Amino acid sequence: MTSEAITVLGLGNLGRALAEAFVRDGRSVVVWNRSEAKAAGLAATVASSPAEAVAAGGLVVVALLDHQAAQRVLSGVDVRGKALVNLTSGTPDEARELAGWAAESGAEYLHGAVYAVPQTIGTDASSIIYSGSSVVHERWRETLALLGKVTFLGADAGRASGYDVAILSGMYGLLGGFLHAAALARVNGIKAGELTPMLLSWLTDLQPALETFAGEIDAADYAGGESSLAMNQSGLATLIRAAQAQGVPFAALDSLKALVDRQVEGGRGEESFARAVESF
Amino acid sequence: MTSEAITVLGLGNLGRALAEAFVRDGRSVVVWNRSEAKAAGLAATVASSPAEAVAAGGLVVVALLDHQAAQRVLSGVDVRGKALVNLTSGTPDEARELAGWAAESGAEYLHGAVYAVPQTIGTDASSIIYSGSSVVHERWRETLALLGKVTFLGADAGRASGYDVAILSGMYGLLGGFLHAAALARVNGIKAGELTPMLLSWLTDLQPALETFAGEIDAADYAGGESSLAMNQSGLATLIRAAQAQGVPFAALDSLKALVDRQVEGGRGEESFARAVESF
Ligand SMILES: NC(=O)c1ccc[n+]([C@@H]2O[C@H](COP(=O)([O-])OP(=O)(O)OC[C@H]3O[C@@H](n4cnc5c(N)ncnc54)[C@H](OP(=O)(O)O)[C@@H]3O)[C@@H](O)[C@H]2O)c1
Ligand SMILES: NC(=O)c1ccc[n+]([C@@H]2O[C@H](COP(=O)([O-])OP(=O)(O)OC[C@H]3O[C@@H](n4cnc5c(N)ncnc54)[C@H](OP(=O)(O)O)[C@@H]3O)[C@@H](O)[C@H]2O)c1
Repeated sequence: MTSEAITVLGLGNLGRALAEAFVRDGRSVVVWNRSEAKAAGLAATVASSPAEAVAAGGLVVVALLDHQAAQRVLSGVDVRGKALVNLTSGTPDEARELAGWAAESGAEYLHGAVYAVPQTIGTDASSIIYSGSSVVHERWRETLALLGKVTFLGADAGRASGYDVAILSGMYGLLGGFLHAAALARVNGIKAGELTPMLLSWLTDLQPALETFAGEIDAADYAGGESSLAMNQSGLATLIRAAQAQGVPFAALDSLKALVDRQVEGGRGEESFARAVESF
Repeated sequence: MTSEAITVLGLGNLGRALAEAFVRDGRSVVVWNRSEAKAAGLAATVASSPAEAVAAGGLVVVALLDHQAAQRVLSGVDVRGKALVNLTSGTPDEARELAGWAAESGAEYLHGAVYAVPQTIGTDASSIIYSGSSVVHERWRETLALLGKVTFLGADAGRASGYDVAILSGMYGLLGGFLHAAALARVNGIKAGELTPMLLSWLTDLQPALETFAGEIDAADYAGGESSLAMNQSGLATLIRAAQAQGVPFAALDSLKALVDRQVEGGRGEESFARAVESF
């Protein structure tokens, strides 16, 4: 039954939540963390090295700070016959690099990107996208489902990270805009708690517009000008001027306006805002 | 009954949709637009000057490109006894300036900010926030409700624009992030149409986190580190590196990271990401 134990490498905020989800389901869990103290209070076997932890499990789940940490921890470890599932954030090429190393080392490699905060791991609000070894995906799908909804994106180990980098950039755009909105609200005597529901309600109403933009981008057809580049250029200019006048400028707005400006200068002002993607 | 007619100044994308909503309800509508051709096909009386249009209506709705255009169009017009509702986007101070001018000129002034695209004016997806004259708000509330949900924010004519500037900055953060996400997806062979539903689903799951951040900002208490500054600093660094490596850098991410860096450098790395608002 040794091959059925689950190894978790890394007990940071995420790794700890992953280990707890497996423990809650009654699984036999073996953990390793650089600072051993983080294993305190967990109903799991604490291994004294990554090699010992990996030897004890059939499925090896990795959740470390970054690619470099994952490489360092796995380096020299005998992973033959193991199912490696790496949930460490990184670039598509980093995932492919580890997949190549795993193949040479006789292991199967699946890369995942987590859409959850540690508190929601194992709940309906948790979703994880995977790509890489379909063998691991099929063999361990039910176990992985203990962490969150499983979506498999195919054999390219870098694909999940490709989605992830894009999704995180979208998320940070929203988070940056949110912080700036809160700063602008504050100088106008408006509480963030008053503003946020109105902002979120408008952003929810905007979702169909984003779907429309996505269709325009895929078709590279920007003729439908419901939200024209020219109108957005004028709106961004007003906003940048207002933020400046209120003493809370934010250069992220200038970066976006530069993308829009380039299209308007190219004579595309009447076309859709979505064409600004062509400025990258 | 002259005082019951509705005047619309400006028949751009928004103004035309406003006029149509009043016409659909069977109201008597008088319109003026700089280029008269835009009135074609509208069941309304076309005035030959702003003064003539204003004289004919009791409620005067203004939807022009920007504050300067609104000032120019209203300048010298006799607005005594009129209810002016200005839906032109601008800064809080611009709205207050026009409110001051209206008071001196014997008119009541209400400023509005529209959350709708022209296509959704008059539907449930349309919402307009107003501030300024409560007399106008009370007298014309039902008529204004023909355009979209009415929210009144009090007597300061600049307040609706204060919300608006903040909400638009939040929106442009999301839109910039969306464009970058689509550009990153493209270089990874992922269609925007595939990416967008996953992005939107994750951003929807994030809404409670934004509510939490808002509470932290209002209390200026950032001790709860569910999403720490240090983790986000590392995540942003990875993302910036990945976007660079893939040939689609976006300086908006650097602007956000600079806000985070400043707090981490101040020794606040373990505190909440929301503290980055203090960097403005
Ligand atoms: N937290 C989330 O909400 C979330 C969501 C999605 C994805 N992720 C991703 O999941 C990964 C882990 O996130 P986290 O929140 O768990 O981060 P974290 O709380 O900062 O934990 C980092 C982990 O990496 C270990 N580590 C760092 N450098 C190391 C090295 N050189 N050698 C060995 N171990 C090292 C740490 O060990 P020590 O305990 O010894 O420092 C710790 O176990 C990251 O890639 C993150 O982007 C996190
Ligand atoms: N469209 C939306 O989805 C939306 C949503 C919320 C808020 N808004 C705000 O609503 C306002 C109008 O937007 P829109 O979409 O209708 O813009 P638009 O389609 O570009 O129309 C601009 C209008 O302003 C007029 N105009 C411009 N400069 C003028 C000047 N110097 N003198 C007289 N008239 C002038 C134009 O007249 P001509 O026809 O003669 O050029 C036209 O009627 C803007 O402040 C915008 O930010 C729009």
